[in-house]
Amino acid sequence: MGVVLSFEESQAERSSIAPLVEVTASGIERVNRLILERTGSDVALIPDVARYLIDSGGKRLRPMVTLASAEACSYRGEGHVKLAASVEFMHTATLFHDDVVDESDTRRGKRAARLVWGNQESVLVGDFLLGQAFKMMVEVGSLEALEVLSAAAATIAEGEVMQLTTAKNTETTEDEYLDVIRAKTAALFSAAAEAGAIVANADRGVRAAFRSYGLNLGIAFQLVDDALDYGGQTPTLGKNIGDDFREGKVTLPVVLAYRRGTQADREFWSRALVKGETGEEDLRHAVALLDRTRALKDTVERARHYGAMARDALAPLPQAAAKSALLDAVAFCIARAH
Amino acid sequence: MGVVLSFEESQAERSSIAPLVEVTASGIERVNRLILERTGSDVALIPDVARYLIDSGGKRLRPMVTLASAEACSYRGEGHVKLAASVEFMHTATLFHDDVVDESDTRRGKRAARLVWGNQESVLVGDFLLGQAFKMMVEVGSLEALEVLSAAAATIAEGEVMQLTTAKNTETTEDEYLDVIRAKTAALFSAAAEAGAIVANADRGVRAAFRSYGLNLGIAFQLVDDALDYGGQTPTLGKNIGDDFREGKVTLPVVLAYRRGTQADREFWSRALVKGETGEEDLRHAVALLDRTRALKDTVERARHYGAMARDALAPLPQAAAKSALLDAVAFCIARAH
Repeated sequence: MGVVLSFEESQAERSSIAPLVEVTASGIERVNRLILERTGSDVALIPDVARYLIDSGGKRLRPMVTLASAEACSYRGEGHVKLAASVEFMHTATLFHDDVVDESDTRRGKRAARLVWGNQESVLVGDFLLGQAFKMMVEVGSLEALEVLSAAAATIAEGEVMQLTTAKNTETTEDEYLDVIRAKTAALFSAAAEAGAIVANADRGVRAAFRSYGLNLGIAFQLVDDALDYGGQTPTLGKNIGDDFREGKVTLPVVLAYRRGTQADREFWSRALVKGETGEEDLRHAVALLDRTRALKDTVERARHYGAMARDALAPLPQAAAKSALLDAVAFCIARAH
Repeated sequence: MGVVLSFEESQAERSSIAPLVEVTASGIERVNRLILERTGSDVALIPDVARYLIDSGGKRLRPMVTLASAEACSYRGEGHVKLAASVEFMHTATLFHDDVVDESDTRRGKRAARLVWGNQESVLVGDFLLGQAFKMMVEVGSLEALEVLSAAAATIAEGEVMQLTTAKNTETTEDEYLDVIRAKTAALFSAAAEAGAIVANADRGVRAAFRSYGLNLGIAFQLVDDALDYGGQTPTLGKNIGDDFREGKVTLPVVLAYRRGTQADREFWSRALVKGETGEEDLRHAVALLDRTRALKDTVERARHYGAMARDALAPLPQAAAKSALLDAVAFCIARAH
């Protein structure tokens, strides 16, 4: 707070997560303490399973957004810390359930919890974290924050179900795909940002600004992730490339490549994603098609569009270190694709 | 309301669910409407999957408890309807997740949702219902009710995890088993009853009475269920008998039979529940052991004890039709075992 940037500096597209990390450092420390505290349970398995994922190097991007949003609204209390921890718990709960739903073998480079402990434990520890998230939110005592976050919980689950139906459907349109990621990913970013404004007692317009910031940041974030799964804006092959491809996920790069492709291309995508012909050679061909149709470049282009919307949403707000950290974070999320 | 029973009539152990059904009839109608409304979703799968379980003939016991508790506290608003529907959604969400966790093939005599649609859909629709439950609770606007119900959500998940560790452990003590069912089953009954008192603005003592009523009713309910899985107080063989046995679940009848049995009995229980030797002949032998050790009779005896605690918890409250309906329901839950 207090650092006022010049007009030029704030308009420049600085792409760094460092300012957001810095502006939320002491808050995140308290979030981490709270996470440790609230994953404690007399039931032996719970702390082990919960910490496996929580300690495994998540970026804490969502709780940082909550903290910085509250900070940008000049919040002076402690409620944002609990809300931020709740947001991270909600996120972690969905990761546990996703691993079971996707039958994933790895998560953030580690063996998926469901393989270490089992599907049962992953479902139930996810439920436990969700329950703890709601307990913490309730403790903060803001019905409005609760409203926004509980609506997000239902929306996320809807998005995941939607994704089950689009997963192997190569005919998915861009709009349909956007509906999925709006619900599955962006709703939580949106609620995370708005909750920060709510706890700071911001007025309707400011709340709407943060809600919109979060939503569009979330969409941009997911689209870049989709592109990164094929190596980013410039398609590459390497380790950790092609996970979505092998799982038959229809993401925006595929939607674009499919719709822009030839009949032969379309047959290839169907064979690969629907029938599961996703060997090394198939992946190589997929990457070539994504390149030829400019699908990855344009996915990042789309992300840039949502990133711009996120930044414009916050534009009317007064300058503050937290605000410009949030703006830089948008550019950072997109720059990952390069 | 308004029907005042004579002392003698109210003290008699009437065992019927009819008064509870009657006293909550119009409320349950509104709960059912709300359930239909809130399982609607533009995501095609969600209404189908959710209604599969919701329509499949659940007794609505938990929401009836919420409605009658509010009524017994002379509540005159509409908030109890949303809280009751939330409680039913929470319950249904745990059923979806249980089926996945237990790998069950049937639920209430129908094919388990996980077999009709898949594990993925069951996990996610459970999450959706949980999110909808919280949304409805938030709409009621009582932070205290939210506190109690969100704490229950975390406790239920803890109880389920505990059960994973006791599931095949024949050495489980009665106390350990009680801890499991207190968390897994009774916590929701307790929260359901207390939420009714909270929304009616009852004072601390009355709230505590309903909390205790629900907790002990829940324990009694589960213990009778455990006995019923082997045919009730008098062991019988028939269809739907032995599901817990075949799943290797250590329930109170088994805890008692194991601890009271001979060395040979103990070896039998371990072979059956741990190693999975649970054929027809094994079930027949199990039922004989349960009979010989009086394990089923005493399980129902234990249930009677918790039932008495439930009734005493409500004893100080003024007479009311809703109150005596709640008392009758306790006796009804226990009488199922005969």
